[in-house]
Parts: sequence; C-alpha cells; structure tokens
Amino acid sequence: MRALARTITLVERRDPSVRDLEEALRSDASTPGVAGFTGAPGTGKSTLVDAVVTHLRGKEKSVAVLATDPNSPFTGGAILGDRIRMQRHALDGKVFIRSMGARGHLGGLSLATREAIRLLGAFGFDEVILETVGVGQSELEVAAVADTTVVVLTPNLGDSVQMIKAGILEIADVFVVNKSDLDGHARVAAELRAMMNLAPKRVWKPPIIATVATRQEGIEQLWSAVVAHRSHLEASGRAKELTEQRLRDETAEVAAELARRRARQALEDDPTLAERLLQDGTPYRTAEEILKRDANR
Amino acid sequence: MRALARTITLVERRDPSVRDLEEALRSDASTPGVAGFTGAPGTGKSTLVDAVVTHLRGKEKSVAVLATDPNSPFTGGAILGDRIRMQRHALDGKVFIRSMGARGHLGGLSLATREAIRLLGAFGFDEVILETVGVGQSELEVAAVADTTVVVLTPNLGDSVQMIKAGILEIADVFVVNKSDLDGHARVAAELRAMMNLAPKRVWKPPIIATVATRQEGIEQLWSAVVAHRSHLEASGRAKELTEQRLRDETAEVAAELARRRARQALEDDPTLAERLLQDGTPYRTAEEILKRDANR
Repeated sequence: MRALARTITLVERRDPSVRDLEEALRSDASTPGVAGFTGAPGTGKSTLVDAVVTHLRGKEKSVAVLATDPNSPFTGGAILGDRIRMQRHALDGKVFIRSMGARGHLGGLSLATREAIRLLGAFGFDEVILETVGVGQSELEVAAVADTTVVVLTPNLGDSVQMIKAGILEIADVFVVNKSDLDGHARVAAELRAMMNLAPKRVWKPPIIATVATRQEGIEQLWSAVVAHRSHLEASGRAKELTEQRLRDETAEVAAELARRRARQALEDDPTLAERLLQDGTPYRTAEEILKRDANR
Repeated sequence: MRALARTITLVERRDPSVRDLEEALRSDASTPGVAGFTGAPGTGKSTLVDAVVTHLRGKEKSVAVLATDPNSPFTGGAILGDRIRMQRHALDGKVFIRSMGARGHLGGLSLATREAIRLLGAFGFDEVILETVGVGQSELEVAAVADTTVVVLTPNLGDSVQMIKAGILEIADVFVVNKSDLDGHARVAAELRAMMNLAPKRVWKPPIIATVATRQEGIEQLWSAVVAHRSHLEASGRAKELTEQRLRDETAEVAAELARRRARQALEDDPTLAERLLQDGTPYRTAEEILKRDANR
C-alpha cells in the first residue's frame, strides 16, 4: 500500500521515472473497471461510494477509491473530511483510498488519474471508483476518465434542476436517486424519465436506481446497472473505441508536458537562446527551435 | 480594423501562419501598455472601461479593449451584451473592441491574449485594456497578462468581502471604488486600507480611487494611478522581469501546443505507431518517440 501511494505521488508530479514504470508495467496490463460518481454536494455521494465499496468487498473484489477535487490544491492521503466516512475500510488491505487535487498536477487532473488507474491495475486492483468532490468542471473530468458515469441525485428538486442545467444528462450512464426514503423520490425519477424522452435518443438508456446508501439499500441493483453498462460498452465496440481515444489523448498530453518542460529547461540552460527570445519577442520561433534541437541530442 | 480582427482570429486558432506573422512583426515591436480590469458582476466594470476609453481618446491615445471570458465558448466581435455600452466608440477608428472566449482557444486564454497584445502593438495601438467578464479564475488570468491590475469594487459590502475571499488583495495594483456616489464608499475604502495594513507589505502600495463611471468622475485620477504604477514597474526593474518571465512562459506554452498537435498528427499518419500504442498502453514512450522523430524530418 505504501509503495502504491508513493508511486501515485510520482505519477502526480509527472516524475521522469513514470516512463520506466510504464515500461515495467507494460506486460501485466490488466485494466480495472472504472466507475465515476458525480453529483451535487449533499447528495450523499461519499456515503454511496462507501456502500459500493462494502458491496464489492462482499464479493471479494479489491477496490481503489480516487477522490478528485479539481478545485483543491491538496493531494495525498486522508486530507478530505469525507474520507473519515471511509474509516471502516481503513484497515482493509484490499481497499485503497486516495485524494487527488488538481493544482499540483502538471498536465491536468485527468492525465494523472488515468496513469494512476493503470498503476492500480498493475497492482492488482479489480475496481476503481472515482468520486468527485467539489463542483464545476469536475463532472466532465470524471466522465472523461470513467467507463461508467453514475450521476447521484436526491429527492430534493434543487439537485435535479441544477444537474440538468450543467448538461449532465449527456454524460450520465446510470442515475441514482439516493436518500430514496425521503418524500419525492418517485417524482425525481419521473422527471428524469421525462427529460430523457425529450433528449436525443442514445443507444444506451440510463437506468434510474433508487438507493438509501446509509442503509445499504439498492446498492446491489446499482452495481448490476454499472456492470450491465460495462457489458454494453464491450458488446457495442464502444469500450475499444474509448480506450483508443483516451490513449491518443494521453499521448498528446504527455507530449505537451514533455515539450513544456524541455522549453523551460532549454531557456535556463542556454543564455544565448533566452537572450534572443527577449530581444526579438518571438516565442513561436523559439519554441520550434527548441523542439527541433532537443530531439537531436 | 478588419485585417486586425481577422489576424486575431488566426491567433486565437493558433493557425500555423502565426509563426510567420511573428517574424514579420519582429522589427516593429512596440509594446502597448496593458491594464486589466477585474471585479464582481454589477460593479460597473464595463461602464468604467468605457469611461477610461473616453479619457484616453481625449488624450489622443488609441485604445484596444479585449473582453475576456474564460467561461464562454464565444469569441469574436460584438457578441457580449456588455459591448453595446461601448457603442459610442463604435465609429472611432482608433478604438478596437474584441471579445475573446476561452473554450475555443488551443493553449489557453492567456496565451492567445498575449499574442493579441503583441499584434495590437504592431498595429500601432498605444493602450490595451483587458476586461474580465464572468467570474472564477478570470481575475488570475488577467493578472497574469496585464502590467497593471485594477480591481473594481462598489460601496456594496458583498463585493469587497467576496473579493478578499478570492485572494484578490495580492493581485490588485490599483483599487477602484466605483459608484462612489452611493452610501458606504468611505467605509469600503477604510476596510481596504485596514486589510492592506494586515497583509504582508508590498513595495507598491495599491492606491484606492473613488469613481462614478457613469458621470466620468475620478477617471483622470484612476488613469494617473495606472500610469504611476507603470512608472514604478519600470523604475524597479520589475517591468523587465515580467516581460522576460512571460516570454519564457509563452514559449513553453507554444512548445506544449506544438507537441500536442504533432502527437495527434503522428498517431493519425502512422498506423503502426498508433497500433503499438494501443497494444502496449505506453503513452509516455510513444510521446517521447514522436518528439524525437518529428524533429528529424
């Protein structure tokens, strides 16, 4: 667990050793399933994720939870208050929990998250759960990385309206109405169904699952829906497409990150180059020159 | 004006011809002064910018206004409603107004903005005013590009508290209390002064200027403060430092953008490379290979 935690820190920092790591892991590439959970604050997302972890542990699956907060500079172990709720899994060697903040990451959160997922696969984890903390762009970040995006709502009307506004309908693969012991859960489900009927038809129709995470209710149905979506991705060829597209994106992002670093280094190492840049004011030409020269070393 | 507008569009798209443009402009590199205006919605920022434009035109200066909205996908001419307020300058050939949205930009808003500023300098503009629209990270984006950052508040307590929360104290070079004909303007100024006394001392102490933009009041004092800050930057050597740092940053970002594009292109052009990436799952190695190979062409 410690080795894993340290290695993820290297990934977050985009330490040059990540490349060697990638080579070393290449042969045992087993990809874990990745489910992303997103929803407004107060929907009980963390409790739901906790319940899903309990469910998966009951089925002898190992689970890693990556809590991502694009607005937080923090990164590392048990910083977020939410993590306290996960305490019952703290001593379980088959559960790994990690918070990943965004600001510290070179190359963006999704790049680091994808690399962490590959790493978790190599370390033998069966399932990865992404949990968004905070609001804003985080839903889209999760959808860009997860195979299955679970959108969590509650019978509170405010949640659902806000979700629709954020264009969440397009990214949801499974809807959860959590806190379904509260009044109004049938209404929320009905509203969701009405909205889906208005939206452009998708091949996969997102199911709506009622849960009460605090009582472990509906979690089995929820996980079945995630598994069903996964099968759909496989059967339709979409899974392969997604993998390909993401590897391409990742390669482009890594290339960008490498070039960024090389440019900074070159300007530091070569006073003549730096001086000419400052005199001429030509960043475009200087960047091209650096990319050319660097390759010939 | 049309040529300028079209050229900025090329810059926004990071069209390859930007490089040639950069070369062509190299010799007449005259840098305009850049003042950034930021503040919460409702502070009368646009009206204030309008008043500043009027003031500068009275002094025979040519002015370009770049309204940047990091949250908007829109870009181009007179899309934003705010721009309607600028109508009185619409027929003035020495005033150029442009909205720049963020999402369409490859490489980020500040990169495109900096290139646009260089371009405006080459087209002979004396002053560039950046105006943020929207909220969130936009203040920091402006501070990263402007020489002088003007933070606009009103006598409404809500504004000032919000501003402080966002850590705006560190980026402000000039404070404006606009709508100073309203009650409470003295209190806001007193609060600001108290906060500045608590904050770590800076060499430059941001002045607090009272304005009523709708009546053109305080604008001359505001502009004097901007000019004074500019002189301070020059005299302290900070201006040179800023220019250097920004050119370095820009070069690194351009290099990243070029590498990103090249990686995507290489994966498209070379099926063998793409196939191996998909098989091995090694974006890091693939990215390195692409950067190496590309330079030898």
